[in-house]
Amino acid sequence: MVLTTARRGLLLGSALRRAGFAQTARFTNGVRNNARTLARSNLGVLGSGARGLASYGESTNHRGPKADRGLGGLGGLGSGTIAALAGLATALSLGALSLIQPDTVAQTEGNAPPNPDDLVKKAQVPGPNECAPGGNRAQRCPLGFPYFSRKEVSKHKHAEDRIYVTYKDGVYDVTEFVNMHPGGERILLAAGSAIDPYWAMYQQHSTRQVMEILASLRIGTLYEHEFKELEASISLDDPFANDPPRANLGAVRCQKPYNSETVIELIPDNYITPIPMHYKRHHHPVPQANEADFRLVLAFEDANILQVSTEDLRSRFKKHEFPVTLQCAGNRRQELNKVAPVQGLEWDCGAISTAVWGGCLLRDVLEFTGFGDESALIERAGVKHICFEGLDKPYDASIPIDKALSKFGDVLVAYEMNGAPIPREHGGPVRIIVPGHLAARSVKWCERITASKGEGHSGWQRGIAYKGAPAYMRTFDGVDPETLTSVQELPVNSAICLPRPGSTVDVDDGSVTLKGWAWSGGGRNIIRVDVSVDGGKTWQGADLGRGAEQGQNRAWAWTFWEAEVDIPPELRKPGVELDICCRAVDVSMNHQPERPEAVWNLRGIMNNSYHHVAVTLVREEEDNEDA
Amino acid sequence: MVLTTARRGLLLGSALRRAGFAQTARFTNGVRNNARTLARSNLGVLGSGARGLASYGESTNHRGPKADRGLGGLGGLGSGTIAALAGLATALSLGALSLIQPDTVAQTEGNAPPNPDDLVKKAQVPGPNECAPGGNRAQRCPLGFPYFSRKEVSKHKHAEDRIYVTYKDGVYDVTEFVNMHPGGERILLAAGSAIDPYWAMYQQHSTRQVMEILASLRIGTLYEHEFKELEASISLDDPFANDPPRANLGAVRCQKPYNSETVIELIPDNYITPIPMHYKRHHHPVPQANEADFRLVLAFEDANILQVSTEDLRSRFKKHEFPVTLQCAGNRRQELNKVAPVQGLEWDCGAISTAVWGGCLLRDVLEFTGFGDESALIERAGVKHICFEGLDKPYDASIPIDKALSKFGDVLVAYEMNGAPIPREHGGPVRIIVPGHLAARSVKWCERITASKGEGHSGWQRGIAYKGAPAYMRTFDGVDPETLTSVQELPVNSAICLPRPGSTVDVDDGSVTLKGWAWSGGGRNIIRVDVSVDGGKTWQGADLGRGAEQGQNRAWAWTFWEAEVDIPPELRKPGVELDICCRAVDVSMNHQPERPEAVWNLRGIMNNSYHHVAVTLVREEEDNEDA
Repeated sequence: MVLTTARRGLLLGSALRRAGFAQTARFTNGVRNNARTLARSNLGVLGSGARGLASYGESTNHRGPKADRGLGGLGGLGSGTIAALAGLATALSLGALSLIQPDTVAQTEGNAPPNPDDLVKKAQVPGPNECAPGGNRAQRCPLGFPYFSRKEVSKHKHAEDRIYVTYKDGVYDVTEFVNMHPGGERILLAAGSAIDPYWAMYQQHSTRQVMEILASLRIGTLYEHEFKELEASISLDDPFANDPPRANLGAVRCQKPYNSETVIELIPDNYITPIPMHYKRHHHPVPQANEADFRLVLAFEDANILQVSTEDLRSRFKKHEFPVTLQCAGNRRQELNKVAPVQGLEWDCGAISTAVWGGCLLRDVLEFTGFGDESALIERAGVKHICFEGLDKPYDASIPIDKALSKFGDVLVAYEMNGAPIPREHGGPVRIIVPGHLAARSVKWCERITASKGEGHSGWQRGIAYKGAPAYMRTFDGVDPETLTSVQELPVNSAICLPRPGSTVDVDDGSVTLKGWAWSGGGRNIIRVDVSVDGGKTWQGADLGRGAEQGQNRAWAWTFWEAEVDIPPELRKPGVELDICCRAVDVSMNHQPERPEAVWNLRGIMNNSYHHVAVTLVREEEDNEDA
Repeated sequence: MVLTTARRGLLLGSALRRAGFAQTARFTNGVRNNARTLARSNLGVLGSGARGLASYGESTNHRGPKADRGLGGLGGLGSGTIAALAGLATALSLGALSLIQPDTVAQTEGNAPPNPDDLVKKAQVPGPNECAPGGNRAQRCPLGFPYFSRKEVSKHKHAEDRIYVTYKDGVYDVTEFVNMHPGGERILLAAGSAIDPYWAMYQQHSTRQVMEILASLRIGTLYEHEFKELEASISLDDPFANDPPRANLGAVRCQKPYNSETVIELIPDNYITPIPMHYKRHHHPVPQANEADFRLVLAFEDANILQVSTEDLRSRFKKHEFPVTLQCAGNRRQELNKVAPVQGLEWDCGAISTAVWGGCLLRDVLEFTGFGDESALIERAGVKHICFEGLDKPYDASIPIDKALSKFGDVLVAYEMNGAPIPREHGGPVRIIVPGHLAARSVKWCERITASKGEGHSGWQRGIAYKGAPAYMRTFDGVDPETLTSVQELPVNSAICLPRPGSTVDVDDGSVTLKGWAWSGGGRNIIRVDVSVDGGKTWQGADLGRGAEQGQNRAWAWTFWEAEVDIPPELRKPGVELDICCRAVDVSMNHQPERPEAVWNLRGIMNNSYHHVAVTLVREEEDNEDA
């Protein structure tokens, strides 16, 4: 009834292939060593951070409870252990566990994922009375696996002893899988214990593929009374239960964590996106901060320097307010998926929105903290990055120091969105706004800003999540993410919002009206948008609308465009499919690349190839002949 | 013997087409009006400039003589007239007269251009005794044209009276041609008089095509005694006679003004280009400044604020020194010419070089002048550009204020190149270095820096010379250059230096070693270079060498790369032509566009499509079988 190691390997391989993991695979030793280094250094941060915060008692309390909360689900641990684990949790949160939602969602919407037990029953041909690596056991569960105690499982935390985890009452050997886990070594947080609390948080695991992989790794079953004890001790309350209510206006790409696009066809109507329509991109449950108690800590590496309330931000620093377009690096990922499968949410061209963000300039706050533009400290201390930590641990991100300090960088410590306090959904009470960069750097619910020699530590900064990988890198197996460059400014991009794909155009109109957005990173103004209705054979210029008037090299918001294009006479027949496309050029004279193949990358980010929309010509009947 | 207007028109049309002018054509009224506006405002500048400089006597003298020198060739004018004309000369120097050297040189190298008289003899079938628009004349020259006096010619300065010019003893009606002149209305400087002094300066006119056009416009001949008087009064001394001696190391694209590439195959050997090998791009004769007398004037619009000597620059401001790659916007123009004819010098990929430039920061000088980063003056006065004027009038260029003032912009007022005073050839004693921008903004022999609301006034800033035009703009006819964006930062680019096109590779080697450069504008680091030996079917990453270590967003110098690429087995046959190509990605994740068609523009600038080099596989015989 128990599989041989070889047979387990085969089953795992095929499950992985089905799940599209063959190409994502394992992290290198480089990363693992790095994880260990970080584990040490982060524990250090926690320690000295606590020291540094001693004079700011509140802030220590502020960090404390969150650490508890994050690991509360594990239950029954002494507070000392919790503190140590909190450090470890942060330290190990390197990979991209939360980044594999894509296929997830396709699977979860509609069909509930199967129970791994059923899969085991279906997939496994009972073998002879073989021994799992766990030991030689007479007593076997109804599925044919040997029984384990929680204590036995807890002894298997390291590769040298094999690594076991439990899910419900199943015991799984994940030793080989660790290197193939898209979320990297974060899986080790559960080594020797239950993964259930983590999966309640990262619901992207609830897919058939993941369950198949899990089933292939099964080696045992918890004693029934032990499982009942465990079940009682684990709180599996839905961590997303407290998310804000939503109208679901745009296409929802994932419910938990919540990710939805803006309404693409309505983009041209709203230069400033109404808040309910602004796209949403969460990696975790939406945290809830009490604005009155909220403190933003300013730090230099692990030494805390200052903490400010939102009231301080409002009263002590000059307020700045301007429109900024935020765009997910994965926007337009759908099109890359058509070239070859990529990881991540299947965004159309609506993971982009514009709001008027208000707040104080990060450079003013840094200046006040002693890290101003002219501060020799920056150079002497080798500060190269400003890191932002959100309340949704372990999320963090960082930006280069020059962007943070430049008078022309316009990075905001924002507390207003479209003239009102920032809603929780969008990062209130305090969100960083880094204009011109991928939105992942505009850290929501920001509670800590650190001047640092290195980049932020999370997988969203240092992992593969937002790295520039080449088209020929078809697997991350053996790739050290540190050798890839972190995405900051995004390239020039544009998309057609109207007409929408699949719509029809009256052939007798003789022309098509196109509308869309164009935007480039780094504040680079859009100088031109070209459009074509014959797949790029002939082009004409679009009229640039709002956004074209933005200050030079400070075009933080998109530029709207519109064009009336004549349908070439030879195409004017009902049934003909028009291949409409657009391409933009920015002030640095960078062009969009022609084909998605050239920019394809395994993470499916930064697709800025020409945007195509197919529409069909029809002859519309007159509804009212008298009219 | 004299052509009818219709026949002249036909001859002109065909000559223009041969010269590739059919697509370049005439400037719009917008430009012409603009020229007039500028004429007024520039005269104003001269006037108030002189006032402003009154307290800096030397500087007034400094500007005075140059104005004289520039128009000295006209001879016999009172000094008041000269002053007025100097303003006009600057004002009208809008177009791109010096920018049509390309085919020019191809023609001049080897074959001396023909005399227009010969062309007239050859091309024209003598007609009946027709009349030129010049009048009804009995007496005709041996070529069959009526004779004119200089006084008669001088009455034809405006379109309403027809516009005549003389060249040698020929009289030409250029009324219709003015709008087609690639140099724009600058041709009107010679209206009613001789163009000979101008052509001595702009020797790009010495081509068969230009002579053909000229021949087609001929309407008469100067009386012999009048021509002799004129000849005696015109100084046609070679204005380039005083150019520095040169080694002609790289491909010379034009002798007068001098334009030459660096030695492409030697690029990979020299991260810092040795000065004799640095590419040279001149628009005029190389001016000679006496360093001891040299003064750099700092101004706000037309009010002079400060003048400094090179000694002041050295002693009063902190010295900064770093490698900067300068690249002509027209680099790699050759490839665009293969798509469709473009204007400009036919650069291969060697109009790029790197030197260590030393000097003080422009921002420090501006700060000292009262236009610092924090100066409210900048905002209050609406300053948006910093303009640089060179000694080679009427050359000027400008950059956006944020580039000039940013701590991270690193714009230099340079006085050293590779550790020594800047040679005259490269802009000494004082040259502006604008890292990350097209080299045309790094104004040589800079004598005036102006904080201004508008861009620089010359054709190289406001004209079509360095504007971002779309691929579908096949003529500048009817295009107002002010509607096109001035190029500043250049897009990501790369090229293969080795092997060189047309070289051979030993098929038995099984692989090819590629070397080249990559660079992007705006200090954007090169994060990757991909190479292919099968025309882009398969790619691999190149190793990044020197330059990859540059500071984040301050990669002002190129990045060298190298790759050893296996030749695909199916191509390993003698006689096979390998299509080797490369493409780079910068830190803002901008990619090079795949095909030159997508970036083609009439001016032939900013070609950053994939760079291709064709080499042939051969089986090399063993030279020495014992070896």
